[in-house]
Amino acid sequence: MRGAVIHAPGDVRFETVDDPHVLHPTDAVIRTAVTCVCGSDLWPYRGAEPIGDPHPMGHEYVGFVEEVGSAVTSLRAGQFVVGSFATSDNTCVNCRNGFQSNCLHREFMSTCQAEYVRIPNAQGTLVATDEVPDEGLWSGLLAVSDVMGTGWWAADAAEVRPGSTAVVVGDGAVGLCGVIAAKEMGAERIIAMSRHESRQKLAREFGATDIVTERGEEGVERIRELTGGIGADSVLECVGTAQAMSQALHAARPGGNVGFVGVPHEVAIDGQELFFSHVGLRGGPAPVRRYLPDLIDRVLTARIDPGKVFDLTLPLEQVAEGYKAMDERRAVKTLLKP
Amino acid sequence: MRGAVIHAPGDVRFETVDDPHVLHPTDAVIRTAVTCVCGSDLWPYRGAEPIGDPHPMGHEYVGFVEEVGSAVTSLRAGQFVVGSFATSDNTCVNCRNGFQSNCLHREFMSTCQAEYVRIPNAQGTLVATDEVPDEGLWSGLLAVSDVMGTGWWAADAAEVRPGSTAVVVGDGAVGLCGVIAAKEMGAERIIAMSRHESRQKLAREFGATDIVTERGEEGVERIRELTGGIGADSVLECVGTAQAMSQALHAARPGGNVGFVGVPHEVAIDGQELFFSHVGLRGGPAPVRRYLPDLIDRVLTARIDPGKVFDLTLPLEQVAEGYKAMDERRAVKTLLKP
Repeated sequence: MRGAVIHAPGDVRFETVDDPHVLHPTDAVIRTAVTCVCGSDLWPYRGAEPIGDPHPMGHEYVGFVEEVGSAVTSLRAGQFVVGSFATSDNTCVNCRNGFQSNCLHREFMSTCQAEYVRIPNAQGTLVATDEVPDEGLWSGLLAVSDVMGTGWWAADAAEVRPGSTAVVVGDGAVGLCGVIAAKEMGAERIIAMSRHESRQKLAREFGATDIVTERGEEGVERIRELTGGIGADSVLECVGTAQAMSQALHAARPGGNVGFVGVPHEVAIDGQELFFSHVGLRGGPAPVRRYLPDLIDRVLTARIDPGKVFDLTLPLEQVAEGYKAMDERRAVKTLLKP
Repeated sequence: MRGAVIHAPGDVRFETVDDPHVLHPTDAVIRTAVTCVCGSDLWPYRGAEPIGDPHPMGHEYVGFVEEVGSAVTSLRAGQFVVGSFATSDNTCVNCRNGFQSNCLHREFMSTCQAEYVRIPNAQGTLVATDEVPDEGLWSGLLAVSDVMGTGWWAADAAEVRPGSTAVVVGDGAVGLCGVIAAKEMGAERIIAMSRHESRQKLAREFGATDIVTERGEEGVERIRELTGGIGADSVLECVGTAQAMSQALHAARPGGNVGFVGVPHEVAIDGQELFFSHVGLRGGPAPVRRYLPDLIDRVLTARIDPGKVFDLTLPLEQVAEGYKAMDERRAVKTLLKP
C-alpha cells in the first residue's frame, strides 16, 4: 500500500510502504476512510522535534474494519469505526479511572496517513457506528478521533461549567474545537484568543462570544477587562509553548482552572506563582476514548460539526502539500482522502 | 503590651510593642486566648527568608473580642472568635468563589504572637462561637485557624473522595492535620510519609493506615508498591520544597490529584512531565474561612482533635524557646499562652 513517510524537516513523501497485518490477537486492520494532518505533526516537519530514520506519519483516522485478531470479539469486517490517537485496552485501572490515554498497554498511533492502518488494542480502542455514516459526517467523526476529543478534554480539564466564562488560548483546530466544547458544556461567555480573521470567524460560528487579538501580557490585560478584573473561570491552553502557558495561567481567575492540551515544549511552571494564584492545572494527552460514544453521538445527530475545522481537502497522495499548506498557515487543518 | 519580635535569624524576642487599636471601621481588636508558632515561621527564623527590619511575628490566633470598628456589626465585645491567617471581607468575588485567602482586600496576619491583635476585615474574617468554649478545646480551635484549615484544604485540593487512597507528604502539623482531613473525607487508605516515630504515632492516631519512611524515588517506589503499581488517587504536599513536590507528583496515579499547601521555595514544575502524568495540581494559601464553620463544629463536637499537634505548651513570654524547640525538631508545634 502507500502512505506518508517523513524523511527530514519539510520532506514528507507519499510512497510504498509495507501492508499492515494483524500482528497480535488484539489487533485490527482498517481501511482508511479519511485521515488528516495534525498541528503536532508540524513539530517534526518544522525540525522542532528530532525525526531520526524516515518513518510513517499520522495518528487520526476513521475507517472500515478489514480484519480483526482472534481476541477481538466486538468488531467485524465492514464496520465503520472511530478510534483515538492513543490506543487503550479500556479495561486496565487507568482506563477504568477514565485516563485511557494512559492505558497500561497504550500505544500511540503513528501510521495513519496511509491507505490501511493496524490498530493495536482494537477492542478497547475502536468504537463502531451502528451503520456506515453518511460521507458528509466523516470529517466530523475524524475530528472526534483527535482534535475534537482534545478540545473536549481541554474544557473538561479546565472544569467548564454552565454559566461560566471560558478563555481559549490557541486558534488552531484544537482551540476551535475547545470553543465547541465550552459551548456544549454551557459556558456563557467564551473568549477566543485569535488574530486570524478566518479563524475568528469560525470561532464565532462555534460559539465564541468575544475575540481577543492581543497576546502576552496585553492579552491578559484584555481578558481581565472582560472578566470584571479577575480573570476567567476556565482557560483552555491549546498551544504548548511557554508563552501560551503563561498567558493561560494569568488569564485564569483566583481559584480558576487551566486545562492544557498542547504538548508542552520547554514549559516550566513556577511553583510559587501557581501557589498564590490558587489556579488548578491539569493536562495531558486527551483520553479521547472516554468521550467517544458521546462525541460520536453529537456528530451523528448534527449537534456539533467539528469537521468544519478542515479547510483544505486533498487526495491522500498529495499529503506533502497538506503539510506545506498548514506549515505556511494557508490551512488550519488538512483532510486527506485515500 | 508585649509580643514576639524577630530581629535576625534565630533571634526572636518577647518585648514591649505598640498596643493595637481599631484603625479602620472594619477592624476589630482581640485579646489573644492562645496563639502558636507555625512551621512557616521557621523560614525567616532559619534565615531562609529575608527578615529586613525587626518585626512582629505570628498569624494563628483565637481570642476574645475587645473592640470593634463602626462597620463591624456582627461581632460584640467578649465573644470568643476564630479567624484565619489571611483576612477576608467574605463578600468580594474571590470570596464568593470560595477563595477567601485571595480576597480583594486580603491582609495576611503577622502580629499574632502577642497579647492583643488587630484583625482587619473583622466581619468577614472572624467566626464567633455561640458561647465561650471549654478551655480544653482552645488548642483545637487554634489549629483550625491555620494548620487544620490548611490540612483540610490540602485534602480538598487533592480531591480526596470516599474510598480513595491518599498520600500525605510531610509530617509537620499541617501534614498531620491533612491525615485528619483525608480520614474525615472518607479516604480508605491513608499513607503518611514520615521518619519520626512520635509523628508516625500521631499520624496513626489521626487515621493513617500506612507509614512510609523512605524518601525521594525510594519513597515513591514504596508508594507504588502500596497502590497496585500506579500511585495514589490524592497526594497532599505539605512541605514546599522541590523534593517534596517531586515526590508528591510522582506518588500520584495517572489522573490523580496533588494538593500543595507548603509555600513553594524554589519549586519549578516541568510542563511536559506534568502533561504526561495527567495529574491535576492545585495549591495556595488555604481558604480557611470557607471551612471555618464546619471545622469549628467538628472540634466543638469532639469529632476531631487537631489540638493534638501541639506537643509543647509555653507561656507566651517564652516564645523564643517555642521557636527554638521547633527549629531543633524537639517539638512539632508550640502552643503559646498569654
